[in-house]
Amino acid sequence: MKGSVTIVGLGPGNSLQRTPQADQALAKATDLVGYGPYVNRVEAPTHVVRHASDNRVELDRARHALEMAEQGRHVAVVSGGDAGVFGMASAVFEALEQGPDTWRALDISVVPGLSAVLAAAARLGAPLGGDFCVMSLSDNLKPWDVVLERLRLAAQAGFVIALYNPRSHARPWQLGEALEHLRSVLPPTIPVAFARAIGRPDEAVRLSTLQEANAEWADMSTLVLIGCKASRLVERPDGEPWFYTLRRVDAV
Amino acid sequence: MKGSVTIVGLGPGNSLQRTPQADQALAKATDLVGYGPYVNRVEAPTHVVRHASDNRVELDRARHALEMAEQGRHVAVVSGGDAGVFGMASAVFEALEQGPDTWRALDISVVPGLSAVLAAAARLGAPLGGDFCVMSLSDNLKPWDVVLERLRLAAQAGFVIALYNPRSHARPWQLGEALEHLRSVLPPTIPVAFARAIGRPDEAVRLSTLQEANAEWADMSTLVLIGCKASRLVERPDGEPWFYTLRRVDAV
Repeated sequence: MKGSVTIVGLGPGNSLQRTPQADQALAKATDLVGYGPYVNRVEAPTHVVRHASDNRVELDRARHALEMAEQGRHVAVVSGGDAGVFGMASAVFEALEQGPDTWRALDISVVPGLSAVLAAAARLGAPLGGDFCVMSLSDNLKPWDVVLERLRLAAQAGFVIALYNPRSHARPWQLGEALEHLRSVLPPTIPVAFARAIGRPDEAVRLSTLQEANAEWADMSTLVLIGCKASRLVERPDGEPWFYTLRRVDAV
Repeated sequence: MKGSVTIVGLGPGNSLQRTPQADQALAKATDLVGYGPYVNRVEAPTHVVRHASDNRVELDRARHALEMAEQGRHVAVVSGGDAGVFGMASAVFEALEQGPDTWRALDISVVPGLSAVLAAAARLGAPLGGDFCVMSLSDNLKPWDVVLERLRLAAQAGFVIALYNPRSHARPWQLGEALEHLRSVLPPTIPVAFARAIGRPDEAVRLSTLQEANAEWADMSTLVLIGCKASRLVERPDGEPWFYTLRRVDAV
């Protein structure tokens, strides 16, 4: 029996934001692999085996999935949001490239999901109205000076900047330094949004400016969106202002 | 009766990639507003009024939606993919900001959708495995020298680059010039993918390198993905290679 690995993006946490394609893929799985909270989020019959693991063991997890598929299992590797955006997809292909040739004949596919950045942007208005970039602020997998240089170039380019993994217990200082770095390149009035756990019961949004933004407002579940010169706020009578970015650009 | 405007991302074209949240929003609409092909893609009862318009009249369309909402209608403004990524969302907030104050009290919301870049990336493997940027190559709304400068900075930053609107009948030369510009910054072996109409019956994928990539391979429905130094191809016995980007980065 030929096994398979399907890498599935579960969306931001609200099942209304999970695609029917993801549901179909999950329904075929004999095994679920992923970070504990994501594996636990999937409803599945009792015969489906859950292989929940800690965070930051992506490559081990990916190899395990491929090994099980080689034994004929149908493995769904799950990530929150989109598995291709700081999720499990890259790790699976890295394990595939490093692994035995036989793995390359396995039935592998990726089912896209609604990434957190899209859900956060929709909640805020239309902050991604122009060109934008998506970065992880974690320096677990890249040197910190690379992160700072990318931030500088992105700001210089006029991209709206979406930051994943802005802060954790193990990395408390990076976001503060990143904001300070951006203050030397961008105007102080640029809108900055902290969008936490969008689509989940503990959802929270905080709007600020680059000058006032405080890294303490972020945690592991927060996505930070930094506007550009074309970003604007539209006040409204009830609720916080809408944050959007003009489509039109006059100069870098 | 208080009207509403809901800006809905329909996903890339395959209804399996449309979220239940989008379906729920569409089911409440009395009026559908958008570019003809997107409006026509929505199944709706006959009493729902379809206001299909040509491309490139986004601001007129947005004003019309807000006017109808002011008259008590429930308007769904639809875009392909995600409405916040080169779709209608920004235009609606621009019209809102310019319009009468009364519009700001309207019930407005944005329902995110699976953007084309995520669907294309999943089809190819995991090309967005690291930091990336998303740009429109159209110079309808920004000067061409801004586009070129952004490409240069993005390549220098080591971002994978996703290009929307790479080519149309009215803009036949931009993609060729963009690729030539990138050849002066990036190694010739960088993977480049042309992903056309992903999730639709006429889906097509073509993998190449920066050196070999030919702008003639793109049309209005193509998304072009340009890798970075951390991008890799994994050969497989049947089918084209997987295109993925390593999560780990050693230097800019």
